[in-house]
Amino acid sequence: MYSERFTKLTPYVPGEQPQDRSYIKLNTNENPYAPAPGVAEALRSYDVENLRRYPDPNADALCRLIAETHGIKREQVMVGNGSDEILSFVFFAFFDSSRGPLLFPEHTYSFYPVYCDYYGIDYKKVALDEDYLVNIDRFLAETGCGLIFPNPNAPTGMLLSLDEVTRLMERWPEDRVVVVDEAYIDFGGESAVALIDRFPNLLVVRTYSKSYSLAGSRLGWAMGSEELIRALYAVKDSFNSYPVDTLTQKAGMAAMADREWFDKTRSMVMAERERVSEALSAKGWKVLPSEANFVFAGAPDRDGKAVYEGLKAQGVLVRFFNKEGLTPFVRITIGTAEENTALLHAVDSL
Amino acid sequence: MYSERFTKLTPYVPGEQPQDRSYIKLNTNENPYAPAPGVAEALRSYDVENLRRYPDPNADALCRLIAETHGIKREQVMVGNGSDEILSFVFFAFFDSSRGPLLFPEHTYSFYPVYCDYYGIDYKKVALDEDYLVNIDRFLAETGCGLIFPNPNAPTGMLLSLDEVTRLMERWPEDRVVVVDEAYIDFGGESAVALIDRFPNLLVVRTYSKSYSLAGSRLGWAMGSEELIRALYAVKDSFNSYPVDTLTQKAGMAAMADREWFDKTRSMVMAERERVSEALSAKGWKVLPSEANFVFAGAPDRDGKAVYEGLKAQGVLVRFFNKEGLTPFVRITIGTAEENTALLHAVDSL
Repeated sequence: MYSERFTKLTPYVPGEQPQDRSYIKLNTNENPYAPAPGVAEALRSYDVENLRRYPDPNADALCRLIAETHGIKREQVMVGNGSDEILSFVFFAFFDSSRGPLLFPEHTYSFYPVYCDYYGIDYKKVALDEDYLVNIDRFLAETGCGLIFPNPNAPTGMLLSLDEVTRLMERWPEDRVVVVDEAYIDFGGESAVALIDRFPNLLVVRTYSKSYSLAGSRLGWAMGSEELIRALYAVKDSFNSYPVDTLTQKAGMAAMADREWFDKTRSMVMAERERVSEALSAKGWKVLPSEANFVFAGAPDRDGKAVYEGLKAQGVLVRFFNKEGLTPFVRITIGTAEENTALLHAVDSL
Repeated sequence: MYSERFTKLTPYVPGEQPQDRSYIKLNTNENPYAPAPGVAEALRSYDVENLRRYPDPNADALCRLIAETHGIKREQVMVGNGSDEILSFVFFAFFDSSRGPLLFPEHTYSFYPVYCDYYGIDYKKVALDEDYLVNIDRFLAETGCGLIFPNPNAPTGMLLSLDEVTRLMERWPEDRVVVVDEAYIDFGGESAVALIDRFPNLLVVRTYSKSYSLAGSRLGWAMGSEELIRALYAVKDSFNSYPVDTLTQKAGMAAMADREWFDKTRSMVMAERERVSEALSAKGWKVLPSEANFVFAGAPDRDGKAVYEGLKAQGVLVRFFNKEGLTPFVRITIGTAEENTALLHAVDSL
């Protein structure tokens, strides 16, 4: 009944969404603050009768606003149904293992190998260095059909500087695409979008799910050379002509337009991240230096699984990764000040 | 820079959405009536703050309501980002040409060959009969890895009876999937969902874009055996965990709940379709008998291209297909009574 390719799938497993009781939910890296007030306004004022019409298939007005906000051309932007859909299109368009495996970090977003299985792409995981940082030189020592890594990386939260990304691009082959998955860049990093005019083989992928508080609206975007973006549109039009809902296009425009809200909420997240990191360190925890909206941290006296279970018993949900090298740690999303204080109390009662 | 598979793509081309002037738009089979009033209410009453959270990845409440409405089990339903996304997952999961080409009608939804290119699936187009009807016996004379056809078919609008679909399923190999793409079934046909308990290899695909007036919200669903639906979930979780926006799930529930609005608006479309068909026939046009929300019709004295251009010059947009066998015709979406009357006047002035 099934295709051969189907039998090779191992689906991605997202963070748990338990229904049995109400938790302080610090396990899926959602933003603790609401979307910009303009989003509610845009949705309320939309004439729902027009939903009988198809959306703009290319989301032109939204792409223009994103381009303007990032100081690039409209032809250097495309949007999709969450950055996950865009990543899938990217794997389709740019990676095939006839020119070597796709490279990505050993510990990283666990959807990457799933896309490889989906499209039949070989991959090679490249080790992090001893401090858990993505190591540029280890990438450059390999030959791959392409390269993808999140910056900051997940689940470590650790950032590569723009200088390091530039050094990579200067040495990486011009005819092979490098994708920087910047889901968390707004919480302290400097974006590689500054480099897309210089490197036509560089693609930057972003999401509305974290720093714009719109995980429920499924919206992500890509920025790169006109050549790469044209290819992504061709893939989109071979998969689903209209991937982004009309109302989601409106919500995305309202969220991007409000730079004040964006800066205010991400600053609050960053300040809380520093407070949580320092408090855990003071308790003897090992806390990796994070530039994301979460911290990756391990207790001095028990492994990540015991911490996860002990916190869950107290009503605080964090994420544990049962993978060699990651078991000392849990990943803790930064919540509101109250949620973070509750977390720190729960840690004391472990 | 590109993958080998990318170089084999020929993207789908949707109907034109011109921006130069305002047209009576009868070219993309949208519904002329608004979505059910409950949709606006559901959207207005939603607390937008919650958009910071991811949607329910499996859209459980929506799937339960769809199941209930169609008298089947929740495990027999899955939803996606428009029926186009679901179709793509279907092609991935069930079709590969190691067991023969995928079969579909010679004249049909032109996205099918695009999906085949996307996944590297061979296909064979099977001729319609002389009256433009899908011919079951011609399918049964072939050996294919699977079979897909719209019912009613597009762009003809012609319907296969449930008896004919049953006859097909009784003779078709049990280990190969048959997909009935019922985008237009609510405008006069009888759904094959009645057969899914009897034939575990039968999948029925539906959309909110036509009879539910929600093209702007990107929502479709599939109904079939638990086995087929489980496979589609596995594909979804290997491509995009959260394809359906939170607000779209709400809109879909409100639209499906209002059976009165659904019946009223589709009855109006059907009555107008009969009026337009009779009026065109009275003018000497050849009008294929349609059970969809459009008619496929040819003028007595000029080809489809001339009709398309002549109507466009008068501000009425219909769709012309520049394909051998279809050039005598244009496809005309059924609009409001006023729009249809304007169309008929424009026809007189051709």
